[in-house]
Amino acid sequence: MSRLRAAILGATGIVGQKYLRILSRHPEFEVSALFASSHSGGKNLNEASNFMLPDDIAEFGEIRVEEASDRILERNDIDLIFSALPSSMGGLEEILSRKFPVITKSSSHRLDPDVPLIIPEVNPGHLLLIEEQKKGRKKGFISADPNCSTTQLAIPLKALEPFGIETVIVSTMQALSGAGYPGVSALDASGNVIPYIEGEEKKIEKESLKILGKIGTGVEITPSDLNITAKCARVPVPDGHMENVFVRFCSSPEIDDVRDALIKFRGPRKVQHLYSSPEHPVIFIDSPDRPQPRLDLMKGEGMSVVVGSLRKSGGFYCFTSLSHNIIRGAAGGGVQHAELLLSEGYL
Amino acid sequence: MSRLRAAILGATGIVGQKYLRILSRHPEFEVSALFASSHSGGKNLNEASNFMLPDDIAEFGEIRVEEASDRILERNDIDLIFSALPSSMGGLEEILSRKFPVITKSSSHRLDPDVPLIIPEVNPGHLLLIEEQKKGRKKGFISADPNCSTTQLAIPLKALEPFGIETVIVSTMQALSGAGYPGVSALDASGNVIPYIEGEEKKIEKESLKILGKIGTGVEITPSDLNITAKCARVPVPDGHMENVFVRFCSSPEIDDVRDALIKFRGPRKVQHLYSSPEHPVIFIDSPDRPQPRLDLMKGEGMSVVVGSLRKSGGFYCFTSLSHNIIRGAAGGGVQHAELLLSEGYL
Amino acid sequence: MSRLRAAILGATGIVGQKYLRILSRHPEFEVSALFASSHSGGKNLNEASNFMLPDDIAEFGEIRVEEASDRILERNDIDLIFSALPSSMGGLEEILSRKFPVITKSSSHRLDPDVPLIIPEVNPGHLLLIEEQKKGRKKGFISADPNCSTTQLAIPLKALEPFGIETVIVSTMQALSGAGYPGVSALDASGNVIPYIEGEEKKIEKESLKILGKIGTGVEITPSDLNITAKCARVPVPDGHMENVFVRFCSSPEIDDVRDALIKFRGPRKVQHLYSSPEHPVIFIDSPDRPQPRLDLMKGEGMSVVVGSLRKSGGFYCFTSLSHNIIRGAAGGGVQHAELLLSEGYL
Amino acid sequence: MSRLRAAILGATGIVGQKYLRILSRHPEFEVSALFASSHSGGKNLNEASNFMLPDDIAEFGEIRVEEASDRILERNDIDLIFSALPSSMGGLEEILSRKFPVITKSSSHRLDPDVPLIIPEVNPGHLLLIEEQKKGRKKGFISADPNCSTTQLAIPLKALEPFGIETVIVSTMQALSGAGYPGVSALDASGNVIPYIEGEEKKIEKESLKILGKIGTGVEITPSDLNITAKCARVPVPDGHMENVFVRFCSSPEIDDVRDALIKFRGPRKVQHLYSSPEHPVIFIDSPDRPQPRLDLMKGEGMSVVVGSLRKSGGFYCFTSLSHNIIRGAAGGGVQHAELLLSEGYL
Repeated sequence: MSRLRAAILGATGIVGQKYLRILSRHPEFEVSALFASSHSGGKNLNEASNFMLPDDIAEFGEIRVEEASDRILERNDIDLIFSALPSSMGGLEEILSRKFPVITKSSSHRLDPDVPLIIPEVNPGHLLLIEEQKKGRKKGFISADPNCSTTQLAIPLKALEPFGIETVIVSTMQALSGAGYPGVSALDASGNVIPYIEGEEKKIEKESLKILGKIGTGVEITPSDLNITAKCARVPVPDGHMENVFVRFCSSPEIDDVRDALIKFRGPRKVQHLYSSPEHPVIFIDSPDRPQPRLDLMKGEGMSVVVGSLRKSGGFYCFTSLSHNIIRGAAGGGVQHAELLLSEGYL
Repeated sequence: MSRLRAAILGATGIVGQKYLRILSRHPEFEVSALFASSHSGGKNLNEASNFMLPDDIAEFGEIRVEEASDRILERNDIDLIFSALPSSMGGLEEILSRKFPVITKSSSHRLDPDVPLIIPEVNPGHLLLIEEQKKGRKKGFISADPNCSTTQLAIPLKALEPFGIETVIVSTMQALSGAGYPGVSALDASGNVIPYIEGEEKKIEKESLKILGKIGTGVEITPSDLNITAKCARVPVPDGHMENVFVRFCSSPEIDDVRDALIKFRGPRKVQHLYSSPEHPVIFIDSPDRPQPRLDLMKGEGMSVVVGSLRKSGGFYCFTSLSHNIIRGAAGGGVQHAELLLSEGYL
Repeated sequence: MSRLRAAILGATGIVGQKYLRILSRHPEFEVSALFASSHSGGKNLNEASNFMLPDDIAEFGEIRVEEASDRILERNDIDLIFSALPSSMGGLEEILSRKFPVITKSSSHRLDPDVPLIIPEVNPGHLLLIEEQKKGRKKGFISADPNCSTTQLAIPLKALEPFGIETVIVSTMQALSGAGYPGVSALDASGNVIPYIEGEEKKIEKESLKILGKIGTGVEITPSDLNITAKCARVPVPDGHMENVFVRFCSSPEIDDVRDALIKFRGPRKVQHLYSSPEHPVIFIDSPDRPQPRLDLMKGEGMSVVVGSLRKSGGFYCFTSLSHNIIRGAAGGGVQHAELLLSEGYL
Repeated sequence: MSRLRAAILGATGIVGQKYLRILSRHPEFEVSALFASSHSGGKNLNEASNFMLPDDIAEFGEIRVEEASDRILERNDIDLIFSALPSSMGGLEEILSRKFPVITKSSSHRLDPDVPLIIPEVNPGHLLLIEEQKKGRKKGFISADPNCSTTQLAIPLKALEPFGIETVIVSTMQALSGAGYPGVSALDASGNVIPYIEGEEKKIEKESLKILGKIGTGVEITPSDLNITAKCARVPVPDGHMENVFVRFCSSPEIDDVRDALIKFRGPRKVQHLYSSPEHPVIFIDSPDRPQPRLDLMKGEGMSVVVGSLRKSGGFYCFTSLSHNIIRGAAGGGVQHAELLLSEGYL
């Protein structure tokens, strides 16, 4: 069977390069075109990129990077688009979605009422929103990936949904690679914590409510009514966001039941068999001092959310979650998202 | 006027050496004796210590370190004791308190009903508990310093007490020096976060309730009834704990009123004039990306709690607090504590 | 063909665990027994070890760790021993070598006149020294691996030997894992450089001269007569030693010839085909800002020495070398060493 | 006596801000004007700068930053100029030197034959070159500071000059702040070493030879004829360059004599009494594991070069030198330089 031809927008950045790495070995997709800002357009990838990732993607080094513009609409060698463009380029994604399926990591369309915001294990049913977009007589559509820090929160929350979630507090400790390259100054990162990432807190709050929301018969999302507060910080860790999560339930489960719910969570059966789905969307480590980025970052090949350090105190159940912000939180999640689209007939 | 003669227990550790540094320039106290474990006893400080601090305390290098034991009771050249012993040595502190005032940083007696747990700006009135100890016909007493991570939480909470605090969630990002020397392995610290510090979460929870509690006519502490949950992590920062604090009030103050309460907090007048008291127990920086250890650690000469990144969301007011865990959180706080004892007639 | 049964001495340390990882997939050797200090003896590996490495060696978790002692001599299920014991245990290695081949990473026997100090690509002929040991009627023998920082110096020097090496200066920047676990204190490592590693400089100097020496007909090594000076520092990098090397040749080669010699170096043909031998013992990156630990650590699966940043100035040719101190510099090098022994008939 | 009015060019960068800090307390100079790139011109310092330094320079926050241009020539409120402009702005310095004394940190004029390159303790006599510039009927002149990494090499070499220096090898491990702000990406710095700093090696080599050169009767510098090779690396340390230095002498001094020469070095008497001169231009620490940035960075208030880890091997004497690259290596050195100019009658 021939593979679908994927274009990567934003191919010269950290996320773009991780897409290259993942797609270079994928059974269903192959890379057919690379696009980036006008600054990179016309160079080959070796020239255009800083190759800041240790991954071996040398095979792509000679491919020409083209300028990301609406001229992409003229192309007939593209079956889908993975976009890792900055959110300021959301307008271009909108234009390209007239013709192509666009799976986007940018934040610009995540909260649009007719754009699904997808974590395959959590809310695959939200893909129905694509039907709404199609009513606009577009041939393509936009389907969005959440923010990296949202994903690793929403997956364990989904596992805990049966207990009835009333309140969620999340305090993040996010890795440097989340800011891109060059991103954070080494002087700001060295032995320091920055208690702020612009826009991040509202993203986590709003995206979580949408993802955990219900899709109604009128094909719109009713956001979850749980109460959520986020506070974000940047810590000097290269890869792997950590989140301290505090949950108050409507019920009063035993802590062992909470643990079991995390351990047993698998997500819908139709998602389990996707090529990129990890066996365990949540890997629970029953130890107070885990997860740790150094030890647990690559669990599930970077696609599992690693949870541990569970305790109960003052009416809150708290735990720590870790995921690889560039794999599960970006390119890996995007590819899994596309696999779901394909499996569900949208590609 | 002659200065009181202070002995330092645990003189060879990080906190002990900071005590040396602070007392070397103090108008009311002078160092008269150094004690440490049997391992160090009999050596001079140069030999016994790794001098792991960059501070210039060379003047003490030739002083003999003696073994910490109950033979200290025979000494007549000691007016008070600063103890930075590990909590396993709490029994010795108990013995020494028969004769000497012991200001201790160890956790062993903090929750004893008749031991005050003092942050001068927050609960100086709790010193009355010392009267309870004196009833035991001891000549001395024990008065305890809180855990470093408690102090920088309790001070801003005190400032916010007028709004009626219902629930507190605190997520810490604590510095390496809090684990002592050698403490954390460089391999565990390098580009990593460890989501656990043994015993720390319960310390924060229980100590905060005691410190914010009321002292009754029967001379006992009624703990605060606020609801508190802590989650602690170690981050690769040399000095300066950061805490993300989420507060729900009984009332619904404007965020500007919360800001003002933090800015205007000074603590009781009788504490403001102590030698080590900073002009501002809380320094509020009205910026979302502050405080930061790199920029704000030494504010108020390391004695201020620096607060910023204030926001309101989901019914919670949240902010970040920073303090120097070895100065305000340990030796600096202990010396200020002794100044209060002196000023109040307990020394 | 059945695999040889290997015992690992020092199985609970960083190097021991890397041995486990490498041998878990090896075609010629299998792990038959684990030994460690009396502290670990009798526990299973899960209990005895801190599992400080992110590698997945869970399959060994239930294996019992036995105490390393001369009672190993009674064992009949061991074909060879990989020792990662501290050098203070050199006496035990001596005893065990009466019966078993001992490939050791410890420094205790490296300079013994009848012990070969082997880097397969550099001096495989030195294995002849084993014949000298056999004259002592031992059934086994000791064959030693060099210090990690020696290996990544000696391999490029071997490549440059044809130009006639007169003087070598090496200034190292060594990784934290070289000090073991827990090793360096995080407080000493954080944003710091320590210009000293005990004994390291003399090890580099003496070992290099032995390794680059000639083996004579009397079966003894005549050390190289090149002039060598080493200066070592510890830098806050988790894995991967960097070395700035300055070489003065007897001849005056063009810098392009020096580059070519590094690029073309392969080592003896009989070594190229060993299972663990990288295709390129030296990978030369023609860029002034490479190698870097972050980007180049795993080149050649951690078995290549990565060289770059070549320049000539003031009569010296200088370059930077990087290798993975735990793989090429320790367990990987040891396994390759055993493969050579097997291939040459010593096992 | 009134203080001389100093303008700072490049006031918004790390070095510019350290100038502000040092001059805010200086007995001979006061800050009269701030200049920076057109990007900052017209803003006040609070707006124009990131305030990336923890120093308290809030007093300057409201001062207006003006655009650095040749219109500075119209100013009559400036007695001297400290320039921390990038070297691309060397042309402007040339223009301004028609009217003003310009003490510059930029590399553009350092090797000009008529520009002195000054380390006060090493070559104060080179100021005579200013007479050559004055012949061009300029009212002002340029006098240059060396590169930070040159300074901490040239000072100990000057101390060792009596032994006759034949060959110098220097391998640097340089701090992040040397690259300015934002400078190095945190992703490149985290747990990594970059074996390259553009142009740095040639700067060290050429500047050292000029500084250690002799000034002849024809008022020109004859460079030293010692043989020098430099290799530079960036390490993840915030402040404080480390250099491993290897020296071969024409003579064969005892190592104790080398040590004594370092300990006893004071520089010329007329320099010792300058306000910013440290008591010891070289502080020798007789320990193999010192200096370290964490412990020794601020020795001599950041103006001393700290030397230790001395050993002799293979015909080379080697040691490690540390200095504060922003104080001694930049703003502190520049102010001391100006003090010398004043003391010698050039201001």
